[in-house]
Amino acid sequence: AAIEGLMADPAVGRPLAGRHVVVTSGPTREAIDPVRYISNHSSGKQGHAIARAAAAAGARVTLVTGPVALADPVGVATVHVESARDMLAAVEAALPADVAVFAAAVADWRVAEIAGGKLKKGAGGPPSLSFVENPDILATVAKKTAGRPGLVVGFAAETEAVVDNARAKLARKGCDLIVANDVSSGTDTFGGDMNRVHIVDAAGVETWERQSKDAVAEALVSLLARRIAS
Amino acid sequence: AAIEGLMADPAVGRPLAGRHVVVTSGPTREAIDPVRYISNHSSGKQGHAIARAAAAAGARVTLVTGPVALADPVGVATVHVESARDMLAAVEAALPADVAVFAAAVADWRVAEIAGGKLKKGAGGPPSLSFVENPDILATVAKKTAGRPGLVVGFAAETEAVVDNARAKLARKGCDLIVANDVSSGTDTFGGDMNRVHIVDAAGVETWERQSKDAVAEALVSLLARRIAS
Repeated sequence: AAIEGLMADPAVGRPLAGRHVVVTSGPTREAIDPVRYISNHSSGKQGHAIARAAAAAGARVTLVTGPVALADPVGVATVHVESARDMLAAVEAALPADVAVFAAAVADWRVAEIAGGKLKKGAGGPPSLSFVENPDILATVAKKTAGRPGLVVGFAAETEAVVDNARAKLARKGCDLIVANDVSSGTDTFGGDMNRVHIVDAAGVETWERQSKDAVAEALVSLLARRIAS
Repeated sequence: AAIEGLMADPAVGRPLAGRHVVVTSGPTREAIDPVRYISNHSSGKQGHAIARAAAAAGARVTLVTGPVALADPVGVATVHVESARDMLAAVEAALPADVAVFAAAVADWRVAEIAGGKLKKGAGGPPSLSFVENPDILATVAKKTAGRPGLVVGFAAETEAVVDNARAKLARKGCDLIVANDVSSGTDTFGGDMNRVHIVDAAGVETWERQSKDAVAEALVSLLARRIAS
């Protein structure tokens, strides 16, 4: 009877029913040549946990993920990408959405010219690489004039002045919320199962206790469900 | 009785019994700052397969591996490292050895100065990174005057002129054998389960048919066992 009661009212415990949530996760990889690349230590654990939590809350979820060692979450449409440009294209293709959560650690820069063959050690010594800026996925989506998701959430991976940097990022990117976490060495945030985050919005900052990435995901999804409903 | 027979003569099927084999595997990661790094697409599958095959052939095996998504092979002393310098230090610590097989895809270069904090996107545009050469693990070990392993084997990951480049590498590094494989896009060598290799030594070149990385490992270990015994 309890189960029938829940099934009779799909909104119970499913505050995101009928909503489309787009989540990005993991690192990106930017090619240097056919064998080398630049990446970062993001494991995708936090982003994947958010995708799972949003699906559990009843949302249709599209997860756009860079290369990670995690299984695709059950019940989540998962799109695998490598570079920042691939990720932006996949996000654009996934829109429209009610909520977008950009948890991926996207490379800020890519190598200006990807070598067609493997760069060789030569008499000239190490190569010098020049870089160009990657598209800014968070700002691109947050500043859309048509088709902007109702809630746009960014992540900030900082090693110092975590909250100040997150406040500046919130203003610069035009998003509604920044989830700021401290990834300095010793925190074990990159790759670990625990996370301590600061939720930064125009109204102020809220610091959550150190908890599992799954718990952070559930709390964040609850917060987003309340905001999108109000 | 069959088992007793085998146990009575441990050399049967164990041509590397009593030998110490050092194998490197996987990519290295070279830090740019606390969150970013440069790496390559090596999966470690070939190197790990060689370590397993050498152990199955009776050797005591030390596997020095960069970050891979593979389990440590059973019965193999496995040392996990990140950077090329870490890998050289672990190899030096593992010597002396009868055979050394350097299957890792070691970064040729590292960033000259690792940033202590995360590099920020600034008004100045993308950073310019300058690089310095990493130690050459293969050449360092192959050119040892004291304590050089009896057989030193290098790998060459090439995208063009595979055999010519391998011949040049053999001479330049001072090793006994180069296992050259074609990693151009489309070959699926990096990350895949199959490999087509050319065995290059002072006497010439032998091209093996495309086969599983496990089969390459077994054939290579047989070849090394014959050479070390002769």
